[in-house]
Amino acid sequence: MKLLRYGPIDQEKPGLLDEQGNIRDLSAIVDDINGKNLNSLTLSKIQKINPATLPLVEGTPRIGSCVTGVGKIICIGLNYHDHAKEVGAKPTPEPRIFMKATSSISGPYDDVEIPRGSEKTDWEVELSVVIGKKAKYIEIDQAMDHIAGYCLANDVSERNFQMHRSGQWVKGKSHDTFCPLGPWLVTPDEIEDPHQLPIWLEVDGTRYQNSSTSNLVHRIPETIAHLSHFMTLLPGDVILTGTPSGVGMGIKPDPLFLKPGMTMELGIDGLGTQKQTAVSA
Amino acid sequence: MKLLRYGPIDQEKPGLLDEQGNIRDLSAIVDDINGKNLNSLTLSKIQKINPATLPLVEGTPRIGSCVTGVGKIICIGLNYHDHAKEVGAKPTPEPRIFMKATSSISGPYDDVEIPRGSEKTDWEVELSVVIGKKAKYIEIDQAMDHIAGYCLANDVSERNFQMHRSGQWVKGKSHDTFCPLGPWLVTPDEIEDPHQLPIWLEVDGTRYQNSSTSNLVHRIPETIAHLSHFMTLLPGDVILTGTPSGVGMGIKPDPLFLKPGMTMELGIDGLGTQKQTAVSA
Repeated sequence: MKLLRYGPIDQEKPGLLDEQGNIRDLSAIVDDINGKNLNSLTLSKIQKINPATLPLVEGTPRIGSCVTGVGKIICIGLNYHDHAKEVGAKPTPEPRIFMKATSSISGPYDDVEIPRGSEKTDWEVELSVVIGKKAKYIEIDQAMDHIAGYCLANDVSERNFQMHRSGQWVKGKSHDTFCPLGPWLVTPDEIEDPHQLPIWLEVDGTRYQNSSTSNLVHRIPETIAHLSHFMTLLPGDVILTGTPSGVGMGIKPDPLFLKPGMTMELGIDGLGTQKQTAVSA
Repeated sequence: MKLLRYGPIDQEKPGLLDEQGNIRDLSAIVDDINGKNLNSLTLSKIQKINPATLPLVEGTPRIGSCVTGVGKIICIGLNYHDHAKEVGAKPTPEPRIFMKATSSISGPYDDVEIPRGSEKTDWEVELSVVIGKKAKYIEIDQAMDHIAGYCLANDVSERNFQMHRSGQWVKGKSHDTFCPLGPWLVTPDEIEDPHQLPIWLEVDGTRYQNSSTSNLVHRIPETIAHLSHFMTLLPGDVILTGTPSGVGMGIKPDPLFLKPGMTMELGIDGLGTQKQTAVSA
């Protein structure tokens, strides 16, 4: 099942992508795609509906982030060996975490803002996990039961702000539009193995990131269980699992960063694609 | 005006503290004390009500966190000179920021959990600012207009998790109950100067923190304006402005950390007091 949100910013409605690629309106079933509605009871209720009985959405509306009302975004840093190497770091024995402001969430095709004063706005394609069931002190073998679905994310990052503005990383991770999520929230029944998904990102048509989620250092169940020992994961919380090599700051000999007008296109097999144009904030 | 939330966990109702110290129910006016209702229009509407006309709340209900639906908690690290010195660090030229999971928010008198495996759970009394109006790229002289109110906070921290578990600080800042907020959200008209408030914390009756918000390195307007250049502040967002010296890890020669049964009592003049008992998670 592919859940989505469509319509103008802050007026999105919940929808479902049917087998033919049409959007079907879910407003009569749920008020939105949010933590409250990501429990297994509500999801299985939606799953039982014949999409053809739901109102067809005409035209090509804007697609919003595939989940809203997100309580927190937890990101795993340096979680692909090749990416850690390209930035001169090592993966840590335990997942290395940081946060991103929830106000950075945007739609998968919305413009990405380059913050004022930025010289190093960079990209990071990531597999994202959305929580469906509260998790506190859970073990690895229970972890997958807490997932509502997966989605594609771009963990846009300003490297100077992240590393040289006396904050922690959150300072370079939290500008508006720095977290496109979607186009769809894909339920686990559609993803045979989340650790075998091709993952890629292109800038202006050149492929810079090209990997597989099989290269994740800390895998999804380990990450969820680990996090649940430090904070309670709630329905609607989003975990960004890390990015593979090929980010702009890692390009040799000359790093590449976003300038207004440049485009990013990214994807993960089964989770759709995103496309963003960089604009000045 | 002192706004508050009272009632059992997750069933809190909005209330107002009247001049006599009674709680008056605000349910007929607003659905909750949250970002949606912290705009100046709603606040001035409440301000015009004669509290005696609101239903009196009988008995002594539990007091919840004074704000809910918080989008993000942004904390300023090392923002008092004496605290920076006691932990062997220096204040940074720009505010040093980190985040705390919103799931850590609790009521001012609720028990504080010591996480499993914790050996260094510590306290930090802080002046907290709650945003009432969206702030993006604002200047220092506009910043105070974006404040809905002030409240007391305890930025409870697990020092090993914070510094030695390969996360960023968020890992030691985000356990459930690590962010008691309240008892009241006090509107700015009641606080003559937020930079002249005595601030203190006692553990088992001994005063360890005893300072004034006059010692803040980065003051409130500077902090709000600065943050607004890195992320958009939204109504209901909470900023913890930092803690003065006297945290457990700074005590010489032997640091002191919380054990089950120990109590913290803390306060800021005009913002009330909190009291928590430490319990095992």
